[in-house]
Amino acid sequence: MSANAQPKAIVLLSGGLDSATTLAIARDQGFACHALSVDYGQRHRAELDAARRVADSLGVTGQTVIPIGLDRIGGSALTDPAIAVPEQPGGGIPITYVPARNTVLLGLALGLAEAVSASDIFIGVNAIDYSGYPDCRPEFIARFQALAEVATKAAVEGAAVRVHTPLIDLTKADIIRRGMALGVDFALTVSCYQADREGRACGVCDSCRLRAEGFRAAAVADPTRYR
Amino acid sequence: MSANAQPKAIVLLSGGLDSATTLAIARDQGFACHALSVDYGQRHRAELDAARRVADSLGVTGQTVIPIGLDRIGGSALTDPAIAVPEQPGGGIPITYVPARNTVLLGLALGLAEAVSASDIFIGVNAIDYSGYPDCRPEFIARFQALAEVATKAAVEGAAVRVHTPLIDLTKADIIRRGMALGVDFALTVSCYQADREGRACGVCDSCRLRAEGFRAAAVADPTRYR
Repeated sequence: MSANAQPKAIVLLSGGLDSATTLAIARDQGFACHALSVDYGQRHRAELDAARRVADSLGVTGQTVIPIGLDRIGGSALTDPAIAVPEQPGGGIPITYVPARNTVLLGLALGLAEAVSASDIFIGVNAIDYSGYPDCRPEFIARFQALAEVATKAAVEGAAVRVHTPLIDLTKADIIRRGMALGVDFALTVSCYQADREGRACGVCDSCRLRAEGFRAAAVADPTRYR
Repeated sequence: MSANAQPKAIVLLSGGLDSATTLAIARDQGFACHALSVDYGQRHRAELDAARRVADSLGVTGQTVIPIGLDRIGGSALTDPAIAVPEQPGGGIPITYVPARNTVLLGLALGLAEAVSASDIFIGVNAIDYSGYPDCRPEFIARFQALAEVATKAAVEGAAVRVHTPLIDLTKADIIRRGMALGVDFALTVSCYQADREGRACGVCDSCRLRAEGFRAAAVADPTRYR
């Protein structure tokens, strides 16, 4: 396949374990990948540094970082410094849920796809070992796909973007095994909701807990740097 | 109706003629309105100043301005300084179309609605006297509504946001008449795609042309300040 014939995909890349594996899968499927990272005023800025390292490590045709002031919206422990990140598992949708985050992220990916003529979008949402966010579920993705089919100039011209969620039915252990098989260096990734500036993890937030359990279940040494 | 019983709405307010009328309609329908303006690196920054004046003039319970670097995406004369705003009507979807803009704007409105417990969103899209953007059509809005019904914590809990498009079937002249009847001061609004710093209009872009024709058709004196 010549370079020109290679289909192009936008891959949402946060710098965490899931999105790094998603990028590796998209590349393995033959896509030329353009990474999209969003600087949404999140506490875990270290993830953005991780996103750059992961993009460099796996190889992308480009990386776009879009700043967006989601802190003006607030309503989440990830964007509002006045709300603490919970350090114990709780019931229901947790306070780390960022209102409408994936709607906004996929909207930006849709715009970037149109601007760079990408035909596909990859997002590492997962509905198994996850925090219960409403916008990580298959029904949300299906409705976003339906929206994408009327939302853009490309769609009107008959070439709507396809949204891929290769992790949606995998356990965290499956994701880790898949990523390792594709050469992802998880030591580069940061999942913690309150990582320090050097990307060292707290070990107690929901995201750290799911990640550590994943490595245990996969029987793989956990490369996470804890503080 | 007590102040507490008044339903709350997010109104997307660009500072143009359409969104000002939309805010007036939402208020007239009894909503306590919170304005959402997006600073998306657009050329027509004067619109943001206009949005503040319109919000002050009509009365809102709050205004949130979210900065978002859509210039990183580009692909539009409104976000990329290297692309000229067309000064003649053309065929097809014009270069002033911002890729996936309304998907992103409605996503942000959805997030803000959730954060401030608003039950409704108003957006001044119009499918009659408009520039042919795909994300101003009724089918786009219907699919966004379907998405909103699964996208948020509020939706999961049975209280999905309702998206209102009170202008969608109106001509520009109808919008102007409606706005005037509700006390909108159109002299405060800026529609031009390339207004100068003082908000003075070019008179030749697609948006200026539609606006001027609207005032003519409504047989209303045009208060637009041209440069």
